[in-house]
Amino acid sequence: MTLTPEQLADIAAERAETRTTLRATAPGMEAHLYTAYPVLDHGLVRVIDYMGDDNAITQAARVSYGRGTKAVSDDRGLIRYLMRHWHSTPFEMCEIKLHVKLPVFVARQWIRHRTANVNEYSARYSILDREFYIPAPEQLAAQSKVNNQGRGQLLEGAEAARVLDLLREDAMRAYDHYEDMLTPDETTGKMGLARELARMNLPANVYTQWYWKVDLHNLFHFLRLRADAHAQYEIRVYAEEICKIVKDWVPLAYSAFEDYRLGAVGLSASGVAVLKRRLAGETVTQETSGMSKGEWREFTAEWG
Amino acid sequence: MTLTPEQLADIAAERAETRTTLRATAPGMEAHLYTAYPVLDHGLVRVIDYMGDDNAITQAARVSYGRGTKAVSDDRGLIRYLMRHWHSTPFEMCEIKLHVKLPVFVARQWIRHRTANVNEYSARYSILDREFYIPAPEQLAAQSKVNNQGRGQLLEGAEAARVLDLLREDAMRAYDHYEDMLTPDETTGKMGLARELARMNLPANVYTQWYWKVDLHNLFHFLRLRADAHAQYEIRVYAEEICKIVKDWVPLAYSAFEDYRLGAVGLSASGVAVLKRRLAGETVTQETSGMSKGEWREFTAEWG
Amino acid sequence: MTLTPEQLADIAAERAETRTTLRATAPGMEAHLYTAYPVLDHGLVRVIDYMGDDNAITQAARVSYGRGTKAVSDDRGLIRYLMRHWHSTPFEMCEIKLHVKLPVFVARQWIRHRTANVNEYSARYSILDREFYIPAPEQLAAQSKVNNQGRGQLLEGAEAARVLDLLREDAMRAYDHYEDMLTPDETTGKMGLARELARMNLPANVYTQWYWKVDLHNLFHFLRLRADAHAQYEIRVYAEEICKIVKDWVPLAYSAFEDYRLGAVGLSASGVAVLKRRLAGETVTQETSGMSKGEWREFTAEWG
Amino acid sequence: MTLTPEQLADIAAERAETRTTLRATAPGMEAHLYTAYPVLDHGLVRVIDYMGDDNAITQAARVSYGRGTKAVSDDRGLIRYLMRHWHSTPFEMCEIKLHVKLPVFVARQWIRHRTANVNEYSARYSILDREFYIPAPEQLAAQSKVNNQGRGQLLEGAEAARVLDLLREDAMRAYDHYEDMLTPDETTGKMGLARELARMNLPANVYTQWYWKVDLHNLFHFLRLRADAHAQYEIRVYAEEICKIVKDWVPLAYSAFEDYRLGAVGLSASGVAVLKRRLAGETVTQETSGMSKGEWREFTAEWG
Repeated sequence: MTLTPEQLADIAAERAETRTTLRATAPGMEAHLYTAYPVLDHGLVRVIDYMGDDNAITQAARVSYGRGTKAVSDDRGLIRYLMRHWHSTPFEMCEIKLHVKLPVFVARQWIRHRTANVNEYSARYSILDREFYIPAPEQLAAQSKVNNQGRGQLLEGAEAARVLDLLREDAMRAYDHYEDMLTPDETTGKMGLARELARMNLPANVYTQWYWKVDLHNLFHFLRLRADAHAQYEIRVYAEEICKIVKDWVPLAYSAFEDYRLGAVGLSASGVAVLKRRLAGETVTQETSGMSKGEWREFTAEWG
Repeated sequence: MTLTPEQLADIAAERAETRTTLRATAPGMEAHLYTAYPVLDHGLVRVIDYMGDDNAITQAARVSYGRGTKAVSDDRGLIRYLMRHWHSTPFEMCEIKLHVKLPVFVARQWIRHRTANVNEYSARYSILDREFYIPAPEQLAAQSKVNNQGRGQLLEGAEAARVLDLLREDAMRAYDHYEDMLTPDETTGKMGLARELARMNLPANVYTQWYWKVDLHNLFHFLRLRADAHAQYEIRVYAEEICKIVKDWVPLAYSAFEDYRLGAVGLSASGVAVLKRRLAGETVTQETSGMSKGEWREFTAEWG
Repeated sequence: MTLTPEQLADIAAERAETRTTLRATAPGMEAHLYTAYPVLDHGLVRVIDYMGDDNAITQAARVSYGRGTKAVSDDRGLIRYLMRHWHSTPFEMCEIKLHVKLPVFVARQWIRHRTANVNEYSARYSILDREFYIPAPEQLAAQSKVNNQGRGQLLEGAEAARVLDLLREDAMRAYDHYEDMLTPDETTGKMGLARELARMNLPANVYTQWYWKVDLHNLFHFLRLRADAHAQYEIRVYAEEICKIVKDWVPLAYSAFEDYRLGAVGLSASGVAVLKRRLAGETVTQETSGMSKGEWREFTAEWG
Repeated sequence: MTLTPEQLADIAAERAETRTTLRATAPGMEAHLYTAYPVLDHGLVRVIDYMGDDNAITQAARVSYGRGTKAVSDDRGLIRYLMRHWHSTPFEMCEIKLHVKLPVFVARQWIRHRTANVNEYSARYSILDREFYIPAPEQLAAQSKVNNQGRGQLLEGAEAARVLDLLREDAMRAYDHYEDMLTPDETTGKMGLARELARMNLPANVYTQWYWKVDLHNLFHFLRLRADAHAQYEIRVYAEEICKIVKDWVPLAYSAFEDYRLGAVGLSASGVAVLKRRLAGETVTQETSGMSKGEWREFTAEWG
């Protein structure tokens, strides 16, 4: 990520001006505000605004008149109870607004989370920058042989070098042509193609950016799916960066989220039955488990 | 609206504590924070939190790095443009959280606006207060003769008095029985009915309360429908109270909302055609307008 | 549930007319169409329309041109895979539309599921019927002593009788007054209160009705929460009735839902750790589990 | 659009099999079912399924037990009333499911309509086809000089030819490299890049496809924005194709939509004031209108 001096000055100006407010503030979050955290080679995540803190969750759950004189330990217990029992509405009472710069193919996965507000940089209205995601060598992996939508072994040597060359050259050439098509030239009478058309030449690793605003419940849902080991690496690194921020914003809620969602394991009815038989000392095999081979493979990956 | 000394103290405590923040603040909104504004006989609206200001709308529309050095006049023009052309996503970048106390039959209309976050006081978990909406005499109207879902003339004299008596007496009796059913009595072995059952005896004018959080775009949609003259009076007064708050929060956006939504008039294709003929000097009648009688009545109510 | 002869004739007429279509049909669902299944004392659930079948789920998952020549066993495996890995969008490709008659306090819980389409009978526009939910004696329970939002022991004898009397009498009186307030009388000049006001006198056990339309993914979410043992009985019976219908509509999807959702158990990170220690032969106590007392009680309720 | 013989056979098979159903059917829609209508050079729209007809709208609005014996003229009047007064929920009672093939940059605009169900062809799981949108010469326009997000004059001669060459060559080269990167070669030990990575090389005019399901209210909202003259041509042609289908599906609702939405004009409070002054014979100028120059230009474009 390289920010222009103007962008850095904008951020510095935002961080320089302190205001007073009667609203709840989250000190851990104030420390993050506006700062651009780099993700991938040109991407970033930064907090533009937030609403609420841990106490806002319990205050809403109690529909109370004040912030309450309850001890932090009470808030902790209540938040864990709410998370454990899937009471989602109190978590919806916190909100975060992020500025994210990300490759288009990542943006296309991200946007499938519909319960959020998004305002994206418009390539009909503006010209995109010459910035493309090129994977680091340690991310350049072959198609997985077991997972139809995942990666396997790392590419090496000549193959890896060639892939990187192709990605880089195609991106640069596409951008050269994009600029060329766009640019009018009075001397030759060239008019310049409309931006809404020229952009179609740019590949999916070009960077876009947006403001994304979401409530904490829906953010946790996003993080559970996208910070998961099965998520594509290029979106997972964004989710992981956001996890760090959320941990400082609402530490009690984040801790409950780690225990009941991120680190949690769902057991099917068949899985419950197998574990109970095992706890009773029985040896269970795939054949006697009632599970298909695929389910059994996933089950034993967790439970041995 | 009567608040208990404890509730008043909670509110005072919230208003007494000033914090510092790097976030955008809206001075007009800070003045409203936490204050309980009375609505109807026992209801209230108060702002618990907010995110963003007028500038947050244009900042998101531009997907910019800073708050911008643009003049207020630029923000005004852009906000009006966005509103006029139904660009909704920048307005979604502001958020408000309200604490509302309202009769159940109003809550049932309100909740039909699905794009919002709600946490309601639970009558499974807690006991409701003895508070019921009893209309003021100037709201006690007969069924409208022209509008199937509206009010007509005011009731008078004995009829009005009797209605108020019935509403009051039935509410008090229902609450007496609610309390009676709920309350255990060890001396007689009375166990007390479960709260989730006892509440079914309470009429729809009992007050409930909730935390309601919504973005500015969806709030404007709510206000356009509920601050409208055709909305039921009992929800309209809430919408009107919220309008006053929003006007102080995001004055530029609210002014555009007044011009392009609240005070706007939609013309059907037929209506456009009739107005153009009129502007050209023609006299148009219902028969030659292409409109049904009902449409013509509504059209001439606006245009003469 | 008592339907009028006119309503029964309407239903019979709907079931009598067979049409031809090129669309996917679900034979198990055709058998249910329009039939009113009784729920509680006056409620009902009936299917008005549906879209899709099990095959529609896999067809969408494959984004295929035809219904596919895949065997049912392939569909079964794919549907179980999609359910196990939380791929929700293919399940959203099926849709159901129900006509439901239900007490208002149940409707208020139900409507909290926002991702659905609802059109409710309007008490501003129409007069409600004299129908109220009165619990059967075997549902008349005391407040639970361990669960703040649940029921405990059954009420008995005089207490039960008194509760039923109060509920019945208050409902009848409220309805008498509702009718009285509504009804104009030309001889006395009584004008009749507007319907939108008179309805506020009716208690929360009055029946309302609506058309409710929802996709299968969101319906499963509703059923998981509302067919659960912790859901209030009066909404659970609706969920259970709908479960029977869905089982006949999309048998493969429903079977996966039973295994991975209804009968599934979620384990927190702490819970996983405890089970693994137990499987390794260790005896774990609450003190050494890292769980709070409440969590341990819930954990051992499932795992002993 | 060129379909493979296998795809054509799938479609023919779907259209060949007639089933019986008790559900409402829309004869105008049955005629469209499954047929692939070409859009742009390789795109298509086809109806996979639908729920409801015009009568389903009024039946839900009345929350009635049967289809009603009401005359079509009553349905027509009620539907127009509902549309005129923004009663949206009855229109949500109809649903349509489409299979759409479209360029990625169009898909990115389309997906911003969040209230719909989507299942997209996965480029993590599958290999995309070698199909790219190349604009027809009559769509190859320069950037508009008045509209920052629109097109102006057509490109001509050498400039047009060069743009088409660049788009075609870059697309073909990008696809060649995509295939090359993907394909393993055992003889050389080349492993083949993971699909989820290789796809990033493909430009935004590559075709994707999805199943898209939406209710009629939200579809009308989509069509109002996307069939509008200000929408980008490449999404507008999809909207126009869908308009033709909807017109045959729910002719009464579509006709009301044309009158009250597509052909309607919104007047701001200022616009209403100006028209009233004009109707009263006054000559109003921009200076005396209270409108900005931009608003006045848009106003006089409609009203002269």
